[in-house]
Order: sequence, then C-alpha cells, then structure tokens
Amino acid sequence: MWKPDRSTRKPIYQQITDYMERRISFGEFPPGSVLPSERKLANLLGVNRSTVVLAYEELRASGIVESAQGSGTRVTKHKWGLTPKQTPNWKTYVEGGTFLPNLPFIRRIREELRKKTGIIDFASGELSNDLFPADTIRSLLQEHPFLGQLGYEDPQGYRPLRQTLVSFLEEHLQIQSTDASILITSGSQQSLYLITQCLLSPNDAVAIEDPSYSYSLPMFQSAGLRLFRLPVDEHGINPEDIITLYRQHRIRMIFLNPNFQNPTGSIMATERRIRLLEIASELGIPIVEDDPFTLTALDGNPPPTLKSLDKTGNVLYIGSLSKIAASGLRIGWLLAPQTVVDRLTDARQQMDFGLSTIPQWIAEQFISEGHFENHLKTLRRELEKKRNEMVRGLQTIMGDYMSYTLPQGGLNLWCKINREVDDFKLLDEAIKRGVLFVPGSVYGSDQGHIRISFARPHFDEILPGLSYLKEALDIHCK
Amino acid sequence: MWKPDRSTRKPIYQQITDYMERRISFGEFPPGSVLPSERKLANLLGVNRSTVVLAYEELRASGIVESAQGSGTRVTKHKWGLTPKQTPNWKTYVEGGTFLPNLPFIRRIREELRKKTGIIDFASGELSNDLFPADTIRSLLQEHPFLGQLGYEDPQGYRPLRQTLVSFLEEHLQIQSTDASILITSGSQQSLYLITQCLLSPNDAVAIEDPSYSYSLPMFQSAGLRLFRLPVDEHGINPEDIITLYRQHRIRMIFLNPNFQNPTGSIMATERRIRLLEIASELGIPIVEDDPFTLTALDGNPPPTLKSLDKTGNVLYIGSLSKIAASGLRIGWLLAPQTVVDRLTDARQQMDFGLSTIPQWIAEQFISEGHFENHLKTLRRELEKKRNEMVRGLQTIMGDYMSYTLPQGGLNLWCKINREVDDFKLLDEAIKRGVLFVPGSVYGSDQGHIRISFARPHFDEILPGLSYLKEALDIHCK
Repeated sequence: MWKPDRSTRKPIYQQITDYMERRISFGEFPPGSVLPSERKLANLLGVNRSTVVLAYEELRASGIVESAQGSGTRVTKHKWGLTPKQTPNWKTYVEGGTFLPNLPFIRRIREELRKKTGIIDFASGELSNDLFPADTIRSLLQEHPFLGQLGYEDPQGYRPLRQTLVSFLEEHLQIQSTDASILITSGSQQSLYLITQCLLSPNDAVAIEDPSYSYSLPMFQSAGLRLFRLPVDEHGINPEDIITLYRQHRIRMIFLNPNFQNPTGSIMATERRIRLLEIASELGIPIVEDDPFTLTALDGNPPPTLKSLDKTGNVLYIGSLSKIAASGLRIGWLLAPQTVVDRLTDARQQMDFGLSTIPQWIAEQFISEGHFENHLKTLRRELEKKRNEMVRGLQTIMGDYMSYTLPQGGLNLWCKINREVDDFKLLDEAIKRGVLFVPGSVYGSDQGHIRISFARPHFDEILPGLSYLKEALDIHCK
Repeated sequence: MWKPDRSTRKPIYQQITDYMERRISFGEFPPGSVLPSERKLANLLGVNRSTVVLAYEELRASGIVESAQGSGTRVTKHKWGLTPKQTPNWKTYVEGGTFLPNLPFIRRIREELRKKTGIIDFASGELSNDLFPADTIRSLLQEHPFLGQLGYEDPQGYRPLRQTLVSFLEEHLQIQSTDASILITSGSQQSLYLITQCLLSPNDAVAIEDPSYSYSLPMFQSAGLRLFRLPVDEHGINPEDIITLYRQHRIRMIFLNPNFQNPTGSIMATERRIRLLEIASELGIPIVEDDPFTLTALDGNPPPTLKSLDKTGNVLYIGSLSKIAASGLRIGWLLAPQTVVDRLTDARQQMDFGLSTIPQWIAEQFISEGHFENHLKTLRRELEKKRNEMVRGLQTIMGDYMSYTLPQGGLNLWCKINREVDDFKLLDEAIKRGVLFVPGSVYGSDQGHIRISFARPHFDEILPGLSYLKEALDIHCK
C-alpha cells in the first residue's frame, strides 16, 4: 500500500492530505462515509498520530470532510467538488466478482511481510534469497545473448524449454513425456487455476487432502467446486477413502501432493500409491499430482512420483522451479494428454496471452547447460543444515510445547501444539514479537497445528524466531 | 501440436503409431471411440496418407484398434491393456469448465500461424519482429547486471517499474498517478480478465463498443456478463446511448478503446469524451479505458486519453507495452483506485502469483534509461511507411472491392467489402492462397468487414498478401 515518501521535501502530513483527497475524489470514500480513525491511519501508514491529525485538519479546512463529536471524520455530503457528481462506489465493485479473495489469515501475513519491518518469516513456503542460484542466472543473462523472440510467445510455452523439460523429467523423475504434452505455466499455481477453471464445472465434487495447501486456496470455491477431504496420516492418504467418496459424491477429480506433502511433510507409502492408481483407473477419475518438492529430498533419493507409476494416463502432473530453484522465474509445468493441454493453452491465452519468453529462456539455459545439478546439490546441503537447526531449536527452546515428525524433504515443519490454542490469537502474539508462521486452520486442519518454514528464514534467524514464538506461546497458554 | 520428428532414425509411421497409442492409452480416445480418418490425420501431421495407413495397420495388429467397413477405425472395446481399466474420458473434462474456449475463428487463425508455413499474416494485431527494440533489450540484458530478486515478486508489480510508469504516464499521456494506484499485469489482457472476474458478478450488464475487440473475448461470457452494444461511428461511440442502456439494463461498467479503436481505427471526438465523462459521473458508472495504441499516433500528436480528462475518478485506465514496444515482455498496467488495485492484486496472486521480476526489470530499464523515446520515433516512422504501402496496395490491387478510412494510428485497417461475402468462406479461400486476416464478425460486426493489420506483415509481404486476398475475393464474389 501507499506510504509517505520520506525522501522528498513535501511534508508528510501534506502528502497524506493529498493521498486521502485522491482516495475520496476517486470514490473509495463516497460522500457521507467515515474515514479511518486518526490512530488507525497513523498505524497503517507508519506515522505519528499527530501527523494524521494535521492532514485531517487540512481536509476539514478545505471542506472535504467534517467531524462530528463521537462519530469520527466523515466525507462531506454535498459540498465537495464542483457539482454533486457521483463517482462509482468502488466498495460495492470490489465486493463483487466470482473470484473470491484470499483468506484473511493469508492477507494478514502478506501485509506484515510487505511492511518490511524485519519480521522473521517462518510463514512463506519459499527459499531464502541466498538459496536462489542468483550468480548463475546473472551470468547466463550477461554471457549469452538473448536471441529469443520479443513477440507473443506460443501460449503453450517456449518450445526449447518444453523439449528440455522432456529430458529433465526423464532423468530426474523417471517421467516419460513429449514436448506436445507439456504446458508451461506461471508456477504450479496457474496450473491448478487452469484446471479448476477449465476442466471442472460448478458443483463438481473433488477430493483434496486434509490438511492441504489446496484448502488455503479460494480458487476451488471460486470455481464453485464441492470439496471433500481425504485425511492424511504419516503415510499419506488412504486410497480406500476414495471409493467411499466416489460412491457418496461421484467425485470427479483428486488433488494430491504425495511427496513431502504441504503442510504435513508426509510421504505417501508405495503400496498406497499402487492401490490409489488402481482405484483411480477403475473409477476413471483423474488425479492431479502437485509435485513441488520431490527433488528437495535431503538424502538425494527422491521418492517416486505417482506419474512415474501411472500406466493408464490418469495422472495430470504439475511441477515447477519455484521450490527447487527460483520462485521469481515463475516457471511451472503441467503434463497432460494433448486434448487437455490444448484446452488449457487456449484458455490461458485469453487470460494473460502466455508468459514472457525471457524467463522461459533463462530456465531453459539453466537446465540444459547443466547448472541445475550443481545448484540442487548445494540446495539440499543448505536445506538440511537449516532443517537441523530448526529441529535443534525446537528441542532446546520449545520444551514440550510442540511435537512434530522430522521431514525428509520439502521446506516446512508441521508442528502440533500440545496445549489448547487459538490460531489467530497466537499469530497476533507472534507478530507482536517479530515472527510469522502459518496457522494450521489455513490448511483446513483442526486448531492446534502450525506450519513453520525452515527454508525461508536466514540460518541465523531460526533460533531467535523460535524464541519469539515460545514467548507468544507462553503468553497465550499461561 | 505434435509433429513427427524427421531428424531421427525412427520411421515416421512408427512415431505416429506410438503417438496414437499414447493418446489412446491416455484416454483421449476411450474404448469404442472413432479415430480421425487416415486422410484427416495425414493432413494434420503433414505426412502422406499412406504413412498413416501403415501406422493404423500397426495399431490394428496389436489389437488396440479395429476397423469396420464404413465406420472407420475404432478403439477396441475390451481387449486393449491388461485389464478393462478406465482412463478418464478427457473429452468430457475439456468440454466442461466455466471458462469458455476462444471463438473457432480465432483458434483457426492461431492454428494456421502455428504451422509456420510462411503464410502472410494480416491477422495478428502485433508489430512485426523487426519493429521490436531487440538490440536495445539485448544490450540492456548484457550490460546491466540483474540485481533484482529471484523470489516471489510483489504481486502488485515490481515497485521501481511502477514508479517509472508514474513519470511515463505523466510525460507521455498527461495522466496523474501514484505507484500505489498501478497494478502491473501480463499485458492489457490480464487487466481485462481481472476486472471481469473480480469487479463484476454474473448477470451484470456491461456496455461494449460495436464492433469491438472485447466482443472477440469469451472472457466476458465466461464471467456471465450480459453485453450491450454501443455502435461506433467515425467519431467513436455516442455517449447518449449510455443513458438509454442505463435506463433499460442498469449497466454497471463501460468498456471503451477511444483512441484508434480496435478494429475500426476511429478516434473519439473531444466533445463526445467530455459528455461521456459527465454522463458516467452522473450515473456513477466506471469506464474501463483500454488504451494500447495512443502513442502510435503517426503524426506524433497523440489524442488525449479519457483518463487525462477524468476529474472524478470514473476511469480505470489500461495500458501496455505490447503494441508500442514488445508484446513478448508481457507488461501491461492498470491504473485504478487503491481499493480496486488491492482487490485485483489479491486475486492475481491466487491465479499466477504475479509476474517474474526479470521482464519487469527490463521494462523499467528500457523506459527509465531513455530508450523508449528513440524507439517510438523509429516505430512511428516505420508504421507510417507500412500503412502507406497497405493503402497503396488497396488502391492499386483491390479496385472497388473495399472501402476504408485512413487510420492515423494503431496497427490495423478496417475494411468494408463492397460485395456480399461470407466471412468464413472468404477466410478459407484466403488461407488456401497464403494470407490471413480477421473476419469482422469476430468483433461482433455484420458480415462484410475484415480487419487487416499493416504492422504485422513484413513490408515486402504487404502487396503480395493483398494480391492473394484479391484472388480469394475474386473466387468468392464471382
């Protein structure tokens, strides 16, 4: 959001006056509506309350707002502007739309991160900046002239990247594919979005893991889908549950993250995978395998993917570079039958006209020139160090507050809090103390779980972050 | 789509056998379904029919398909695979979804272009490759080390780019903004998409120009909107029509492209703009100003934008680099009140997690280092040459087949055909002869109009393309 610019000569209060005047004149605060309290606005903008008092005073002086004892500061009903014109009431517009907003928890966390106050981030499921292959990418950019095209790229994705991915998938994950069956998307997120928008219809029943990252995504509700849950234990979901759900609700698709599941970190047991594929095949139900983490396997022996075991073509496979190289490249891929790829390509062309060639070209160079393997070795080593530090901290700092299972890959630890807690209040306390995490209820789990990322904080932040979290727990559970 | 690889040793027919077997085993052709005829598949894959005959023979030999006199080649009902397993019937999946496919015309044109047969392209509303600032971008990439981040970018867009755009919009288009009121999107397309998904609800009535680019976008129908038309004459739409539509249908938003309107090329008259803004303001209706072309004004005097005349904040302004620099950067922007920007930022984060920093960083450098001005001068000069060549060709080649108004900017010529024609058949004939255009009915216009781009073909292709088009007209109108 907007913040005053402290590098210019214009006084802060004057900047705030102009800013609020613009918001009022643009209809965000229609005539008669109440402005945020001085204290609240001061808080939002990171200024002293007295500065906002001055700004509101200016607005009052020019007749744009008026104050009434006890009812705050209101936009003047009839005086402002030259004529009593109406601007659109934007509030009613932003409350419309078929696409639903993010959960309040997620928005809260994002806002805290945008403030850049130096809060310790155990919330983002992302690598820390020092783990991205920044030097390699910088030298790729400088040493190899970009000869790709600057016109609209094929909306299915830059073909050399798709061709490179065919070998990549074969070599690292034993997955067979052709470049025609690959769609390049803006991370896994866009693959999921396209599937929910284009292959499923409102009221369709789908099965998702419980707890699950999918649960945190209003995109399922936005598409009007009915969600049914497959409980996850330490060996993943139980395939027989699918039969029950199918009988009861005719589920049309299953969304799974079998390796280092988000958030629990669990790996689906092999015999369950085999049974799952049998069942899906017998019932003719597609499985969407969301697979961001397999290659992070800390011991260098990634568990098999469902797709590599899939003999009947029931699995739509989603991968990406986000968690294993750099999320900021926005490179993900969907592997699917060609009819599906064609349909989704057509839709995404309408939504965003495809991705820029440039990051696709970088990803292609990064993989085909052999940089990925070296990077991955370093990444695993560093992730293991961080995971161990996090575990050490949990043991030494947390006492018996939390239990967890040691994750063998992925970026997160899923912790059970051995006390009665309220997610939201705990997050509040934690933020006050300078640490962020994701409450378990975001993933549809019962109260009493939290997800903490060991990948995102810098190594040196891990122990301090845990101490702050411990303080928050102390307050909350006292 | 997939094509046989002529560089390997594997015989083409064998490649086709494997390819079809994979499609069958992946459920695109479920048991009992009919395969494409040999002739049709041969055509699609660009091979001799005899090659497909061989491939189908192979599939028959292995029991995967069977032939019956007169009913083509069918996938065997019960024999193939080890067990009578079901794969998902992908056809029913791809026919579902709330998001509608592109119009058949558009898909047809795109397929022709993907074949890369050297067809002359008067269809794409895009610059030709020689008009992109490729050398500048290449040297920016090589000379300036990329120091941006490789993690998730702010989904609202790379802040230095938003700040640079504030000056850009002020300097080139006399539009006032702040970086907080700018959302960076994947071209204008994504801005439109986000607006239709997040600010409007199913059954809302909206007004669009007739004819209009918007009409070619199933995204409006996908969002369940009811579309009402504002006829465009040589001076744009008539603002009084809005009052009528508002009374009858309570329209909630107006989508306009006032400068060098796509497809007609018309410029909205100043007095109409003023009246339009008055009406929108009185009725409290937002106007979405889609403005890709203003800076292409061939005489270097761009007409004013609606946004620059907007005193009450009714206009949501959409711009992009696609038509004035490079479509492949995928850089567009939406200027809107902060509540709107916040809502759309939140939604796009769920859809694609935001754009990669890298193209945003390139765009920022390109503009802030002063390259844009030089590029724009060259661009205008070259576009003027091409437009003049196109007009010369129309005069010398077309005789009295077509009438048109000379466009002063934009990338297209809107032509009325002075005969009775069927859009679709004419396109068919034109493709046979090696030239593509967009039939007017794609834009919701009556039969008898076509849009031809003078920007996309190379200079030397313009006259030959028109000759082919003339031949197609001759056949069709004989």
